[in-house]
Amino acid sequence: MFFEGAEKRIEIVADELTSDLRHLGDLFWQTVLAKAGASILSKISNDYCDAYVLSESSLFVWQDRILLITCGNTSLIDTALQIVESVGADHLKWFGYQRKSEFHAHLQTSRFEDDIRRLQQCVSGQAYRIGHLDSHHHYLYFNRQPSQHSYSALQMYHIKGSLADYLRGERQQKSVILTRLCIEPLLAKFIFDDCLFSPYGYSLNGIYQDYYITVHITPQEPSSYVSVETNLSSTAPLFDLFCSLLNIFNPSSWDVIGFNQSIPADRIGCSDPLAKCSLMLNKIDNININQYRQLACEQLAPVELLP
Amino acid sequence: MFFEGAEKRIEIVADELTSDLRHLGDLFWQTVLAKAGASILSKISNDYCDAYVLSESSLFVWQDRILLITCGNTSLIDTALQIVESVGADHLKWFGYQRKSEFHAHLQTSRFEDDIRRLQQCVSGQAYRIGHLDSHHHYLYFNRQPSQHSYSALQMYHIKGSLADYLRGERQQKSVILTRLCIEPLLAKFIFDDCLFSPYGYSLNGIYQDYYITVHITPQEPSSYVSVETNLSSTAPLFDLFCSLLNIFNPSSWDVIGFNQSIPADRIGCSDPLAKCSLMLNKIDNININQYRQLACEQLAPVELLP
Repeated sequence: MFFEGAEKRIEIVADELTSDLRHLGDLFWQTVLAKAGASILSKISNDYCDAYVLSESSLFVWQDRILLITCGNTSLIDTALQIVESVGADHLKWFGYQRKSEFHAHLQTSRFEDDIRRLQQCVSGQAYRIGHLDSHHHYLYFNRQPSQHSYSALQMYHIKGSLADYLRGERQQKSVILTRLCIEPLLAKFIFDDCLFSPYGYSLNGIYQDYYITVHITPQEPSSYVSVETNLSSTAPLFDLFCSLLNIFNPSSWDVIGFNQSIPADRIGCSDPLAKCSLMLNKIDNININQYRQLACEQLAPVELLP
Repeated sequence: MFFEGAEKRIEIVADELTSDLRHLGDLFWQTVLAKAGASILSKISNDYCDAYVLSESSLFVWQDRILLITCGNTSLIDTALQIVESVGADHLKWFGYQRKSEFHAHLQTSRFEDDIRRLQQCVSGQAYRIGHLDSHHHYLYFNRQPSQHSYSALQMYHIKGSLADYLRGERQQKSVILTRLCIEPLLAKFIFDDCLFSPYGYSLNGIYQDYYITVHITPQEPSSYVSVETNLSSTAPLFDLFCSLLNIFNPSSWDVIGFNQSIPADRIGCSDPLAKCSLMLNKIDNININQYRQLACEQLAPVELLP
């Protein structure tokens, strides 16, 4: 029943000479996603963006920008290299490749360091690890150009409570999950597209103008994980959204990532700030990662192995 | 510079029909340790025990009992199976095999589950994992007989301060480290044997009657780690020892393991209890694992990779 929810992520901003990336078309995306072992399940569009729910996470394509997130055992690096080749390394204004530390890293087809050695052949940049090896950590590789965009992410580990129970239950309904996430009322202007996986798992994409939100839920223990990412730039709705989801999922621990965006740590109630890092990537861009856990001492249940 | 400090551990108690295990002799131990990739560096003895400092951690041999701890990339399972074969599986009153989650699990020659599949061929027992996969976790395999002995361990991660700096420095002296550990005054009746490794690392064994203490230090980041284990059964000296070492090493986080032994969590000052677990292994034996971290939010330094 194990599924690796921890994600790999590439983000590309193309220069002004590059044709509209949306014109690459679904067939192109199907082909390059196949290299990572992922496929397209559904799509929504507006005037700004095509948003795809994938077999493993999500793809967003704007005129000049791509955001591709995959989880499971996908080899995102293979797709990333193919996209860079197609767009042309010379036409990248911004390039970012990230990996969240996996629950079972040994099941992955490559390590971050392997990926970077391949990436460095075509995109020069700097690689970092933020976070201890024996805790949640984040691998980052960015080229050295300013990006001038922003996003925020909330990554929740070991979810508990009634929605977690429902998501681990026998019968689930997409519409029930979407309602219980309470995201629609907070983002009333967004259109949404979601997918329920069998036996467990749920993905949601939402778009409004050039804003996106994407939610991915891997409910099953021992590796339950929920990620939320958005480029909403106004602090108040973002804060409400993250607080609401923290209440709904009641995770043991969580990370908040802000790329050119910060969320006041002291305003997230009942949490214990574990660790934090703020890193300037160039003269403009900053990434900050804040790690939290619940205040109460956690009662660990021993897990019987190989019964 | 990476060294895996996280340890594997076997403990065996032989029945009354088994000959004095100390008579197996140094040549036997050299031969079986070679199967794990470890070797004997030095030895001290008293009327009760032979204590060996190994190239990777320590071995203690009593008349009816063996405790073997190895770190690095040793394949302790190979030595464990050889010892079980030599003593005879039918003559084991108690058998325990444990692994601490590694900083870099992918560099190990086997996973715990692999080891257990081999062990189950000769020693029936129950396997557990205590602790989340995305945090420190402990793998345990015990046969189902009562052991009636006890031990305590303190495992410290990410050490800081002047002794940590000294241990990471250019020139170190064994005698300076032993003095700065402040263990000798606390355990005045013990005799000690220690070894300094190049370029980093320090091991210490101490024995008095049938009591032992063993300390292993891997000072270098990103995986600094100090483990202390002892069968001292009186709570007060044990508590003083652990508190003293926590002050000296100032770790970011630490685990306290008690096997038929508990140390009051609320008496370890300035710490934040993260998680705890108490597990009855049979009608008599209990193992409890308590995880702590420092109270203050940690400032994480980003680590540049592949510069």
